Amino acid sequence: VSRAASRRAPGRVAIVGLGLMGGSLGRALVRAGVAVVGLDRPEVLARARRAGAIGVAARSLADALRQADLVVLAAPPRANLRLLRRLARFARPGLVVTDLTSVKAPLGREARRLGLADFVGGHPMTGAERGGFAASRADLYAGRPYLLVPGAASRRALARVRALARAAGARPVVALDAREHDRVVAFLSHVPQLVAWALADAAGKDVVARGALRLQGPAFASMTRLARSPEGLWREILELNAREVRRALRAFERELLRRSRAVAR
Amino acid sequence: VSRAASRRAPGRVAIVGLGLMGGSLGRALVRAGVAVVGLDRPEVLARARRAGAIGVAARSLADALRQADLVVLAAPPRANLRLLRRLARFARPGLVVTDLTSVKAPLGREARRLGLADFVGGHPMTGAERGGFAASRADLYAGRPYLLVPGAASRRALARVRALARAAGARPVVALDAREHDRVVAFLSHVPQLVAWALADAAGKDVVARGALRLQGPAFASMTRLARSPEGLWREILELNAREVRRALRAFERELLRRSRAVAR
Repeated sequence: VSRAASRRAPGRVAIVGLGLMGGSLGRALVRAGVAVVGLDRPEVLARARRAGAIGVAARSLADALRQADLVVLAAPPRANLRLLRRLARFARPGLVVTDLTSVKAPLGREARRLGLADFVGGHPMTGAERGGFAASRADLYAGRPYLLVPGAASRRALARVRALARAAGARPVVALDAREHDRVVAFLSHVPQLVAWALADAAGKDVVARGALRLQGPAFASMTRLARSPEGLWREILELNAREVRRALRAFERELLRRSRAVAR
Repeated sequence: VSRAASRRAPGRVAIVGLGLMGGSLGRALVRAGVAVVGLDRPEVLARARRAGAIGVAARSLADALRQADLVVLAAPPRANLRLLRRLARFARPGLVVTDLTSVKAPLGREARRLGLADFVGGHPMTGAERGGFAASRADLYAGRPYLLVPGAASRRALARVRALARAAGARPVVALDAREHDRVVAFLSHVPQLVAWALADAAGKDVVARGALRLQGPAFASMTRLARSPEGLWREILELNAREVRRALRAFERELLRRSRAVAR
C-alpha cells in the first residue's frame, strides 16, 4: 500500500456503541470494504453481526483496541467520557481516537488531560428521531457535513478520521475549534431541540389546541419532529453544553420578543 | 340538475385575489370543471387567464358578483375585511361568501355586522413560503384539511363551500367555532411562525454561528423554513389574532423555561 493510499484509508476501525449513529457508521463502512470491529451489549452485537454492520464482535474494550487502528466512541456523551478514561489506560501509542458526540469541548479537554495525543473530535451533522441499532441505516451519513475538531492531534490522525468520514459517504469539514463548534451547534441544533419540545408541549397541553392537533399543517409537523428525540440523551448533551445553550437561548428570546411586537405584549 | 347534485357542486365561483392561495384554488377548480371568474390587477388577471387558473376575467367586484353563486375572498386579511364591506353594498340575496384567511373571528364578526347571512369562514391548512400567482399550483390543496367555520350560515351555504373545498381536492372539516379556530391556529401556526423567525434571526446575528450556517442539519433547515414567509402578510395575521397569539406565546415560553432546566438558568 502506497503512503498516499494509506493516508486515504481509515485502517481497521473499532466502533464502541452500535446505536443509531454507531450502527449506521458500521453499515456504511462495511459496505465500503472497511474492516470493522464492534463493541456493545451481546444482543446488540449479535444483531449487528447478522445485519452486516460489523465484521467482528469484540469481547471487551481491550479486545476491540487490539484489532483497530482507529477507535470511534459512539455512545452517549457521558458514557463516551467514561470510555475515554478507560481507554487511556491501555491505548497503545499511535492509536487514533475519535467520537460522534455533538458537544466537543468536554471530550477534547478530557483527552488532553489524559495525554491522548491523537484524539480528533468528530460531529457528523446527521441523525433521526428514533435511536438504537434498529433505527440505523447505511445511508445516514451520505452527503452530510461531518465536522472535525482536530485540536492538537497529528496530521496523520486527522487524515485517518477524514478518511473515515469519506468512507461513510459524508463530507468532512475541518473548520472550527471545540469552543466555536459548541457555540454554533447551540444555535443550529440545541436551542431548536428545546424549541421543538416547547412547541409540542404547549399545543399538547392547551385544552382547545390538543383536540385539534390532527388539523396541523406541514409547518407544525416539521417544527416539532425533533420533539420525539430521546430525552435522556438530549439532557446529557444540553448539560454538557449548558454555557453555550444559555447564550443561544438568550439570543433566541431577544429575537422572539422583537418579532412579537406585532401582538403588542 | 338534481337537488342532490346541486348540493354537491360549488356552482359558479368568483375568486377575488389571485395570489398563492387564490391562484392555486383557481387552477384546481378549473381542472375540476368548475366555472371560475377571477378578479385582481389587470396584469395578474392576464397571467391567470393564460395559465388556465380562471375562465373569465372580471372587470370589477360588481362584475365578478354578477357572474357567481359563490365568492371567495382570497386577498390578505385586512383587504378581505375591506372587500367584505364593499361587497355587502351590492350582494344579492342568496350569494354565498367565503374567505381563505387564517384568522376567523374578525371576518365572521364583520359579516354578521353587515348582515351577510350566508358567510362561511374558510381556512385551508396549506401554503408555501413564497406568495403571489407565480408560486400558485394546482395541487396546493390536494389532500389538505380545509377548515370551515359556518357560524350562522344556512345549510345550503355550508354545502356550497364544502363542495368548493372538495372540488379543490381538499378535505373539508367542519369542527370549530371562530374563537376556537383562532386559538388552535395560534398554537399550530402563528407561534411557530414567530419561533421560526427568532431561530433564524438569532443564528444569523451571532458572530460565530452566522459564519457556520452552511453546516446546518436538516432539523434547523426545517425549523426555519417558515422564516422566508412574507412579513407584511404575517404582520396582519398576527395583529388580527393578537389575543390568542399572546396566550399561545405565554404557554410556549412556560414550556421552554421548563425544558431549559437542564441548562440551569
